Amino acid sequence: MNTQRPRVIIIGAGFGGLFAARALANQPVDVLLIDRSNFHTFTPLLYQVATCALDPSEIAYPVRSIFRKDRNIRSLLGTVTSIDYADKTVTVRIADQTRHEAYDYLILATGSVPTYFGQSAFREHALELRTLSDAVNLRNHILGQFEQATWEEDEAVRQAMTTIVVVGGGPTGLETAGAIYELYSHVLNREYIQRELKTRVILVEMQPHLLEPYPEPLRQAALEQLRSLGVEVHLGSPVEAVTKAAVTLKDGTVIATHTLVWAAGVKGSPLAEMLDLPLQRGERLPILPTTEVPDRHGVYAVGDMTYLENESGQPYPMLIPVAQQQGKLAAKNILAEIGGGEKRPFHYHDRGSMATIGRRRAVAWIYNKIQLRGYIAWLAWLALHLVTLLGFRNRLNVFVNWVWNYFTYDRSVRIILEQGRGEGEKVISEK
Amino acid sequence: MNTQRPRVIIIGAGFGGLFAARALANQPVDVLLIDRSNFHTFTPLLYQVATCALDPSEIAYPVRSIFRKDRNIRSLLGTVTSIDYADKTVTVRIADQTRHEAYDYLILATGSVPTYFGQSAFREHALELRTLSDAVNLRNHILGQFEQATWEEDEAVRQAMTTIVVVGGGPTGLETAGAIYELYSHVLNREYIQRELKTRVILVEMQPHLLEPYPEPLRQAALEQLRSLGVEVHLGSPVEAVTKAAVTLKDGTVIATHTLVWAAGVKGSPLAEMLDLPLQRGERLPILPTTEVPDRHGVYAVGDMTYLENESGQPYPMLIPVAQQQGKLAAKNILAEIGGGEKRPFHYHDRGSMATIGRRRAVAWIYNKIQLRGYIAWLAWLALHLVTLLGFRNRLNVFVNWVWNYFTYDRSVRIILEQGRGEGEKVISEK
Repeated sequence: MNTQRPRVIIIGAGFGGLFAARALANQPVDVLLIDRSNFHTFTPLLYQVATCALDPSEIAYPVRSIFRKDRNIRSLLGTVTSIDYADKTVTVRIADQTRHEAYDYLILATGSVPTYFGQSAFREHALELRTLSDAVNLRNHILGQFEQATWEEDEAVRQAMTTIVVVGGGPTGLETAGAIYELYSHVLNREYIQRELKTRVILVEMQPHLLEPYPEPLRQAALEQLRSLGVEVHLGSPVEAVTKAAVTLKDGTVIATHTLVWAAGVKGSPLAEMLDLPLQRGERLPILPTTEVPDRHGVYAVGDMTYLENESGQPYPMLIPVAQQQGKLAAKNILAEIGGGEKRPFHYHDRGSMATIGRRRAVAWIYNKIQLRGYIAWLAWLALHLVTLLGFRNRLNVFVNWVWNYFTYDRSVRIILEQGRGEGEKVISEK
Repeated sequence: MNTQRPRVIIIGAGFGGLFAARALANQPVDVLLIDRSNFHTFTPLLYQVATCALDPSEIAYPVRSIFRKDRNIRSLLGTVTSIDYADKTVTVRIADQTRHEAYDYLILATGSVPTYFGQSAFREHALELRTLSDAVNLRNHILGQFEQATWEEDEAVRQAMTTIVVVGGGPTGLETAGAIYELYSHVLNREYIQRELKTRVILVEMQPHLLEPYPEPLRQAALEQLRSLGVEVHLGSPVEAVTKAAVTLKDGTVIATHTLVWAAGVKGSPLAEMLDLPLQRGERLPILPTTEVPDRHGVYAVGDMTYLENESGQPYPMLIPVAQQQGKLAAKNILAEIGGGEKRPFHYHDRGSMATIGRRRAVAWIYNKIQLRGYIAWLAWLALHLVTLLGFRNRLNVFVNWVWNYFTYDRSVRIILEQGRGEGEKVISEK
């Protein structure tokens, strides 16, 4: 190792951190990429893992594999427990050990976490969909509820076991609600035959419309497509109370359910607090247009965890393309700083956004101008996600699974895989 | 439901239970298939999940999916906690509830569990490879050890982290040792580049030879192929002590290691004890040639958990084909009993056995006559396992992965996926 070269530490191997690291590959810096997982997660397809369409590893790519050929990028599997910005050191816990890693430049890219808008009690009964483990947990939970419902004598309890409430009318909420309904209508209702099980999938949004940032015609199209699929959409009322067996909305509606999926909103990663700076709305860390953190020398931050306003005074949205472009810019500005060049401010290249609702149902808003809906939007969504998945093998397997699911209406990954010690001797200990 | 039809309960959806259920499909009986998992596991490929070559769902097949078209077969995800053979009732725990299920005929097919030959203290530090969860745990453990080793300063500790001891010279031990060595030599040693990591894979067998039931030339061939791959083989000495950091053999050898894979032997499933009968060697339940359990009316038992001697007084081996053939026979004998036909005794159709040691390395003993080794045996192994995998989609994905791994020397499924609550707020709670 050439210790003369500046050392850049990147925290987080999500879209922001990954694009920063890529832009620093084979440049005259030593890079250390720290994450709590040994893989990058393609988060837009998490709901497909949760609904038995894809295997976890098909949307997860090992970090070491991504940077196998880039000898200036090292990877550390660990949890950052503190940042000493005066001494320019990061403390990392690896298993039961602690390391102190010095940096010349630091890029924070730890994204966001779900927010319960002050109602942290909701969290106890809610399932999330932010990490690969969340997705597997949700899959296990839904399949487990159906297995129990098959043998449940009490009709009301049985209905609660097969009722799923998804909170949040953004793309994640829509995608999850649509995919769960399809899992039920194409697979589960054919196989859980002891009793007649009726699934209700209810999407709850506190706004009077879905897809807040989209134009009205697309919001309407999304609503109609969801309803035509069979999803019940409940608009205009926030969640007021959550228990193990029910969700109560502010308008008095009580939904008996054992499954609440929380996709209602996110806030900046708690890691931002380690810099001892006042945070902005949504606990987001304010950054300069260069993606530098003010008053913290050598520290940059990118993506969901940051707060930066555009020319018209609006904060940039918490979206993957923003994180990717900011990650790349942070890397380039660090290289400019080292090489004596000029740092550039952030300009967002917005190619639009899309959300899928199910088989042949989607909405897309391309370059924030062209509005697509239905089959054509769904095909655009498929193509985009296959192209942006990392790794040829993953793409091939995902393609095989999608084609399989499309023609057979099947969902093959329907295994309830609880982790922990093998089951070999459970029976004995339970006797 | 026609309650006039006899009710058959099958406990266990392994190879024995699956073949029994298949033989009872669309016959004049009502079948209830009980298992603790909602899927059948193709156990011969567990070691490939453990060594990052296959995804868990590629070797797991949902029970409900297998019997989707067979309306007389129902499935129950639960744990059997007791059998009342006088009252012909089985007690099952489903989540936090308990059910009592009555049977006219009962087929026990719960297989085997690892045995530590009285040294149950070994189990605390050993990793097993009997269930899908075991395989994922072993994968997480090996990858985690390599991640830690990369950052470990102490050379001896580092070596212990990348030393893997596999105990047991049967097919599972050979396959696991070979696959772990290949995972290291083709993948891990290219990606864990901070320090020079040297892997040792040591196979320990107490007998003076590998593959006990095989003829001597194949035992030798297996030994040579393992050694040519790079696996160290230690014959003729049992394990005497196991700690978190070392394995001690009876001959005094001490191996510093953090990873002990126990593939040394199995005993009958503890469920057999519920029948209150004296058990045979290996805690196996004695059965009659018809697969009936003596003195327990209407109860049959098949596969690894049972003890039955062949014409020459030797017990049938604990192998998948025995379980499959006994499962089918139990079903047919139950149908004969119902229909007034004649029950038949068990005759084992032995097509031989094979074990793979790695890429292009294997031994096969076809019809216990033809001896194959090396590339040709490996091709036979590949073909057999692809053909016997359940489900076309699984076969296709497994094939894609095998071809991919073969030509690229890659192992794509290298994600450490710990289960449990999402990681969103860990950092905060650790501050």
